[in-house]
Amino acid sequence: MIDEKKIIDILTKVLSLEHDDVSFIKLGNKFLVLKCDMLVRKTDAPKNMRLWQIARKSIVASMSDMVCKGVKPIATLISLAIPREFTRREINELAKGFKVAEKEFDIKIIGGDTNEGEDLIIDVVMAGISDKIVRRDNAQIGDLIISTGLFGYTGAGLRILMNNADAEPRFRRVAINSILLPKPRTEFLNIVGYVNSSMDSSDGLAATLNELSDSSKKCFIIDKIPSSDDVKRFAIVNGYNAEELIFDSGEEYEIIATLPKENLDYVMSSMNVKVIGRVEEGKGVYIMNKKIRRLRRKGFIHLLE
Amino acid sequence: MIDEKKIIDILTKVLSLEHDDVSFIKLGNKFLVLKCDMLVRKTDAPKNMRLWQIARKSIVASMSDMVCKGVKPIATLISLAIPREFTRREINELAKGFKVAEKEFDIKIIGGDTNEGEDLIIDVVMAGISDKIVRRDNAQIGDLIISTGLFGYTGAGLRILMNNADAEPRFRRVAINSILLPKPRTEFLNIVGYVNSSMDSSDGLAATLNELSDSSKKCFIIDKIPSSDDVKRFAIVNGYNAEELIFDSGEEYEIIATLPKENLDYVMSSMNVKVIGRVEEGKGVYIMNKKIRRLRRKGFIHLLE
Repeated sequence: MIDEKKIIDILTKVLSLEHDDVSFIKLGNKFLVLKCDMLVRKTDAPKNMRLWQIARKSIVASMSDMVCKGVKPIATLISLAIPREFTRREINELAKGFKVAEKEFDIKIIGGDTNEGEDLIIDVVMAGISDKIVRRDNAQIGDLIISTGLFGYTGAGLRILMNNADAEPRFRRVAINSILLPKPRTEFLNIVGYVNSSMDSSDGLAATLNELSDSSKKCFIIDKIPSSDDVKRFAIVNGYNAEELIFDSGEEYEIIATLPKENLDYVMSSMNVKVIGRVEEGKGVYIMNKKIRRLRRKGFIHLLE
Repeated sequence: MIDEKKIIDILTKVLSLEHDDVSFIKLGNKFLVLKCDMLVRKTDAPKNMRLWQIARKSIVASMSDMVCKGVKPIATLISLAIPREFTRREINELAKGFKVAEKEFDIKIIGGDTNEGEDLIIDVVMAGISDKIVRRDNAQIGDLIISTGLFGYTGAGLRILMNNADAEPRFRRVAINSILLPKPRTEFLNIVGYVNSSMDSSDGLAATLNELSDSSKKCFIIDKIPSSDDVKRFAIVNGYNAEELIFDSGEEYEIIATLPKENLDYVMSSMNVKVIGRVEEGKGVYIMNKKIRRLRRKGFIHLLE
């Protein structure tokens, strides 16, 4: 067995791919932006997730990648592998999920492909035309680092759904919804002209911060961890590591971005974002609260080397 | 269990999709054309097909749909579900197949997605910009019907590969290659301005002719079946129905098109096509050789009703 990172490395190298949340080519003075994201039910959806929620979530994943780059999708395709035993009712429920997403995110599904497969697989393809694409590699020294939301809920939600972890009713609802009904941050399209770099956090907070820092060849200092006390409480009650929940869960569709200080007022007036740190010369991601620790891609925190 | 046609019907209805070989939206005075085609190894690839051939063929399927509509792809994405047990050598072989297709068809793979799945699944996405899209529904009364090639080889090839059917060495090679190394008819891009309607024949000749006839609301008269004596010989030797091989095999990537008579000389000087019939007022597809028979979508021929 070979892990996903290595597979991507081989394909990226053999096919000379560029690496960002979306793919694109020049089209006159604009960009044609394309994104595909494949959901495999067995590995990507908890057992108690309903079919229409799976369909909706498959759209959220591509949508989040498009909006975090500042691109509004103008057309969506859906490729499906559907198990032989699916009933008409189940197909209708899938279709309903796509329809819900179409309205909720103001997108247009114009076509696709259907096949028989052992497991339900949904590949969502989005296309957009854009004047500009916010890159991962353009964080500038002096930039503030912002997050569009808080982390730890998806890790908690999964543990509630899969391991029956204990949670207060309100937290339980928020955490479970973060898995079953995630929301892409489409408001980000309004502030995209004001940021220097950005990335969708669906690979987890630690991976996202490290990827932005590595691509931009800058040091990221995080002095305000984007999470909340109820995540910490949930971790303590259930004996989990809170930092692992926050930094290494993944499936969050928050956006991490960097922007010049002078743009902050405008951005905060248009969208609910939190400043979590700053960009400096150097490399690596560092967490500064009581002590300084280096945050690695895998989400584990080691003492400063 | 619900069949693929019904699944497509439900999704098409719920999502109000248009139905042609590709999907498209207006983009100023041009069209943005998108196509996705998913290959599932278990159902779409014979056991003895090598991985690089599977990768290459996954590209052929989308490529054929793009070129039959007159659209040259400008960007390609690849979404993969890869079984856990795949080795590095196997990933490299897949990548090699994509690379072969990239060169052979002059396309550019710019990105994609990788996932773990139970079976190998390859979803190929292509995008293009075009002034015009040749539709399925635009066959005109008086048009000639042309085919870019002969039928029956893929059915024979599958039976040689799967059932050890008997074949002469040259026929065997051609038939097997039609399955393992199919060729999209990219030369069609040169004559696309001269045709009124077209469709890729990968669903089989009978389905393709009926789809063109139904969409265009015209009668298709076929007086020259696009096949050859060696297909008939192969059928007789092995006890198969030759017409089933010719009309109902599928997986051919030939293009069926209709065009005004006056364009035929130019078209024949640019590409090797065969005139197989003509478009008349009415509905249905009719085969006229010794007798007149109606050709149904399923490929079975009934007496004229």
